[in-house]
Amino acid sequence: MSFMDRFTALKKEKKTLLCVGVDPALPSQRKQSVISNDYVSSDENKTRLSFCLDIVRDISDYAVAVKPNQQYLFGFTKEDHRKLASEIRRLGMISILDYKLNDISDSVSSAIYHISDSGYDAITFNPLPGNLLETVQLAHELALKVSGRELGIIVLTLMSNPEAITFMKKGKVDGLPIFKVISKQVRDYNADGCVVGATGHVSSNEIRSIRKIIGASRLLLVPGIGAQGGDIQKILAVAGENTLVNVSRDIIYANNPRIKAKEYDELLKKK
Amino acid sequence: MSFMDRFTALKKEKKTLLCVGVDPALPSQRKQSVISNDYVSSDENKTRLSFCLDIVRDISDYAVAVKPNQQYLFGFTKEDHRKLASEIRRLGMISILDYKLNDISDSVSSAIYHISDSGYDAITFNPLPGNLLETVQLAHELALKVSGRELGIIVLTLMSNPEAITFMKKGKVDGLPIFKVISKQVRDYNADGCVVGATGHVSSNEIRSIRKIIGASRLLLVPGIGAQGGDIQKILAVAGENTLVNVSRDIIYANNPRIKAKEYDELLKKK
Repeated sequence: MSFMDRFTALKKEKKTLLCVGVDPALPSQRKQSVISNDYVSSDENKTRLSFCLDIVRDISDYAVAVKPNQQYLFGFTKEDHRKLASEIRRLGMISILDYKLNDISDSVSSAIYHISDSGYDAITFNPLPGNLLETVQLAHELALKVSGRELGIIVLTLMSNPEAITFMKKGKVDGLPIFKVISKQVRDYNADGCVVGATGHVSSNEIRSIRKIIGASRLLLVPGIGAQGGDIQKILAVAGENTLVNVSRDIIYANNPRIKAKEYDELLKKK
Repeated sequence: MSFMDRFTALKKEKKTLLCVGVDPALPSQRKQSVISNDYVSSDENKTRLSFCLDIVRDISDYAVAVKPNQQYLFGFTKEDHRKLASEIRRLGMISILDYKLNDISDSVSSAIYHISDSGYDAITFNPLPGNLLETVQLAHELALKVSGRELGIIVLTLMSNPEAITFMKKGKVDGLPIFKVISKQVRDYNADGCVVGATGHVSSNEIRSIRKIIGASRLLLVPGIGAQGGDIQKILAVAGENTLVNVSRDIIYANNPRIKAKEYDELLKKK
């Protein structure tokens, strides 16, 4: 079963578009939005893993996907990753490791080996080195050998931070803005979807144009609502059915993540 | 002491341009160029770490920098990273984690926290999200607080894989090829250097133009000689003094890595 087949089946069953981003920050690394002291021990990995597992269990009735963030998981063993990915799977959700992979072939191959072996369903990918085709082939073939299933590849296409304008929108290849070039590569190379921001400079028209290029069957992963702001209804009107809306800190650092996830799920269901 | 100050001091002392890339592949992940069975145990991290530490000790007389590759270290604990980074430091070399970081601000901040806390001197960075300025500031300020020293930021500028042509050379912002736009950002935002390939489509003129933009005092990290081919003399004639030439598998999987490192060091010293 491919990544998108599994996603489609789960979405039908769970009837939600919510993806919860898991960014476990230690109290030593910043002041606000950090793991509660109840979890903190001298073992950083234990602290982060037990926080992540509780979040995953709390939100599982209202989310169809979980997106653990590599920048917050630096130092996790493969066994830690396995525990997290398998709990997400057990609870009927897709696991997307937000890894932003970008590298040359042998290194891409090594990353896919370890990430598949850790049990994740998909990863995010940064296409600047240009080798998306090769990466999709490795993710769909090598991963199948390692873990028994394909690894989905979700490609950074148009990010919403203001600095992303320089390369993604003002940057052009043969006159076409780079976010559209990336969208065409996603379609032509059979990648599984696009990461598309939903705040600031990203317009409904741009989201619509990306969806038009990649077609209805691929995934749009849309971060940037919740704590980051963003207009959910604007997104949903143009993003199409195969869309995941990601919310991170607004849920995971809420007093009650389960209730907050329920609220977001209901918000996403409003027309 | 900044990253470049430390690099310059060490280079003067060790009189070599050699950087050894450490890509520890498990025998289970591919057929050739893998860690010898002598190192293999049931603990993947122990297997990889003991291989890496032996390589670092073997080559330390002939190299001024070591570049461990994140795609091969996936699953390392921060303690594993610390052992590797501190051994590289103890032996008088710079440690550059080839991490290819690319993310939005809070996530960049988290990655820099963990990587500095693991003891590395520098990381590689992929500039597609556009926030190099913010990343350099975090790497030079936050890292100083965490580890007592700045973290160097070395930016993917022009890669030598053929697919990199699409975005890095054909891609343009206001008519300027993206690799030159990146070079200007490296200069204007005070990043520490550029990663520039040395094989295939990358010409001497392009290397020269990047050096001209970034100035003499920043680092050019040049992978792509050795097993990947590449013409060392062509590079050295135009790359300038602050250049590191990276060799990975040709050294680390040689029968005798120490002798192979010595051979490369001598090759780099030929005029």
